[in-house]
Amino acid sequence: MSPKPIYLDYNATTPLLPEVVEAMLPYLTTHFGNPSSAHIYGQEPKRAVAHARECVAELIGCDADEILFTSGGTEANNLAIHGVAEARVDRPCIVTTVIEHPATAQPCNALQACGRRIVLIGVDADGRADVESARREIGSDVALVTLMHSNNETGVLQPVNEFARLARAAGAFIHTDAAQSLGKVPVRVHELDVDLLSIAGHKLYAPKGIGALYVRRGTPLAPWTRGANQERGLRPGTENVASIVALGAACAAVARDLAEAAARMRSLRDRLEQRLAASIPGLALNGHRELRLPNTLNVRFPHCTGSAVLTAADTVAASTGSACHSGEVTAPAVILAMGVPQVEALGSVRLSLGRGTTQSDIDAAADALIAAWHCASGEA
Amino acid sequence: MSPKPIYLDYNATTPLLPEVVEAMLPYLTTHFGNPSSAHIYGQEPKRAVAHARECVAELIGCDADEILFTSGGTEANNLAIHGVAEARVDRPCIVTTVIEHPATAQPCNALQACGRRIVLIGVDADGRADVESARREIGSDVALVTLMHSNNETGVLQPVNEFARLARAAGAFIHTDAAQSLGKVPVRVHELDVDLLSIAGHKLYAPKGIGALYVRRGTPLAPWTRGANQERGLRPGTENVASIVALGAACAAVARDLAEAAARMRSLRDRLEQRLAASIPGLALNGHRELRLPNTLNVRFPHCTGSAVLTAADTVAASTGSACHSGEVTAPAVILAMGVPQVEALGSVRLSLGRGTTQSDIDAAADALIAAWHCASGEA
Repeated sequence: MSPKPIYLDYNATTPLLPEVVEAMLPYLTTHFGNPSSAHIYGQEPKRAVAHARECVAELIGCDADEILFTSGGTEANNLAIHGVAEARVDRPCIVTTVIEHPATAQPCNALQACGRRIVLIGVDADGRADVESARREIGSDVALVTLMHSNNETGVLQPVNEFARLARAAGAFIHTDAAQSLGKVPVRVHELDVDLLSIAGHKLYAPKGIGALYVRRGTPLAPWTRGANQERGLRPGTENVASIVALGAACAAVARDLAEAAARMRSLRDRLEQRLAASIPGLALNGHRELRLPNTLNVRFPHCTGSAVLTAADTVAASTGSACHSGEVTAPAVILAMGVPQVEALGSVRLSLGRGTTQSDIDAAADALIAAWHCASGEA
Repeated sequence: MSPKPIYLDYNATTPLLPEVVEAMLPYLTTHFGNPSSAHIYGQEPKRAVAHARECVAELIGCDADEILFTSGGTEANNLAIHGVAEARVDRPCIVTTVIEHPATAQPCNALQACGRRIVLIGVDADGRADVESARREIGSDVALVTLMHSNNETGVLQPVNEFARLARAAGAFIHTDAAQSLGKVPVRVHELDVDLLSIAGHKLYAPKGIGALYVRRGTPLAPWTRGANQERGLRPGTENVASIVALGAACAAVARDLAEAAARMRSLRDRLEQRLAASIPGLALNGHRELRLPNTLNVRFPHCTGSAVLTAADTVAASTGSACHSGEVTAPAVILAMGVPQVEALGSVRLSLGRGTTQSDIDAAADALIAAWHCASGEA
């Protein structure tokens, strides 16, 4: 069996950290009880969920009782958007951007079909949402402003602070989807001044199928899914104890050495970009050079499609866009929104690094991508 | 450390079967990829999800493409109820029963708040939903009939077939929450003639946080949570691969020896009831004696509360009602709905057995419960 390709698709999903697997295993075996059970089998699961809630809260700087566990980032976004919209029926408008993940865009579209007004803010050539447009649009009819913390394809950090200030001034609430940022850059809810923030476990070295929503105390929120009284009735269903424990362990792990890990990823990411740029004339960066996740490199290969490069570079596992859109043959909408012409945008490849990426991975990936580009573009 | 009490609360949650843990582990470690990724890391997860889908389908006798994975039974019920209601706006009414789990009752209540008409069918003294009332109520304005397959507290099997026939005749769709029945009795969608059926992993020796919804081909269903295109766009969010694999493994495992396991549980359950009845004059059964899950014994202890019995019987872990309602001091609504007077209903205890229950467990539990009853009731 040939060795697996070098994994440069951490923005699609991350492997679990070994300590995360270790932390969750007892809750798949010995401590299988239902945390709602009054008897002893419920006690340790209940305690473990409470502890995990503290670990998640600690990572983003909130109180434990401001964290609701969900089945992932998608559900967290749906709960935030529908939850505030339903609790604020007096305000018909929701402001969002053209570069949101479908897990934000689609619930907004559903609200639009129900008569809400959705305002889409554009981005500049660097892929940052336009604060001036937001200033014009965020008025007293706005219930919620929702803006991703960083873009999943370009890694570009968004002006959440500025949007929060505008939302606050208009009496609107503000939500940010931080799925892609957590564990890569510091994300602190009070510094951002957001009311709601979404977390996705599987972008953060925890399993798929678990996430969380930060809800600032006092934020009006209607439940989305309905059922029994778990998560204070705001997110019913028997708690996914093992995965909640895993998410807590992952948050604790990434919090421990966030700055060092980020610096290491940034250095390797920059090395990769320099290697590619040195050998591929016309290689262009998608997105802001500085205001960007330290692990993400989204580049446009000239004279060929990103898909052709990745097909030729079979020792590298990366993607031309988010995994959620795979199978599409069009250029990523996020890149087009930045004003990149379609023919250039088709050359885009997202290379995303993680805690497991090594320098030899980067050097081998650079060699493979350069050779693949020569092959795919026909440039000698 | 004293040994853990005898676990007789399998209806609250089940331990994972060792083979289920073993099946899921590779997807928490080696095969961590995103099934939507086009590269090789996505391939094995994608294959495993497809295989699990077949295993779930096999257990209930449907095709794999009629299974949608969800985060659990609660979400499956919400998706079924909202999904059909939204797809059938021409029909304003939903028919359900007074004994449904909150995961069914609460979405119905939410629809009522939005202007839908909800009709509640009562139950007889045996805890079975009343078919004659249903016949009167299921008319041409009914979008959906939703009736649990068996009650989580009494274990009483419900007349799903009869309700399905009435729904079919009225042009309504029919959903059943089979969370509590799967793995205990045969559940086959074509014999039941249902359009939608909910599955909860953690009642079935799979982990918490995973479930599924059977949707008969051709059933109109709007998505509930919105996002990317996973699960044919009907249930977005990156697939919870490891837990999906676990659910598939659990379905395959329980399907292998369903009849034998059920017979064994029934025999032990009946032994427990006989032991208790022989020593506790006035002990009464809650629910139909025959039309009942083979693992469930819900009895009323005379002259004391069920809570007092369980407190005194500290070597037995059971509950006075569903774990989802724990903390409540009122009698279970399901028991009251059967016409049992409040003072008697307070004596109720649910004892639910599982694949791990042994005869010595049952004998020790009987001794402990009898002694506890003497102590709690003051009967010498």
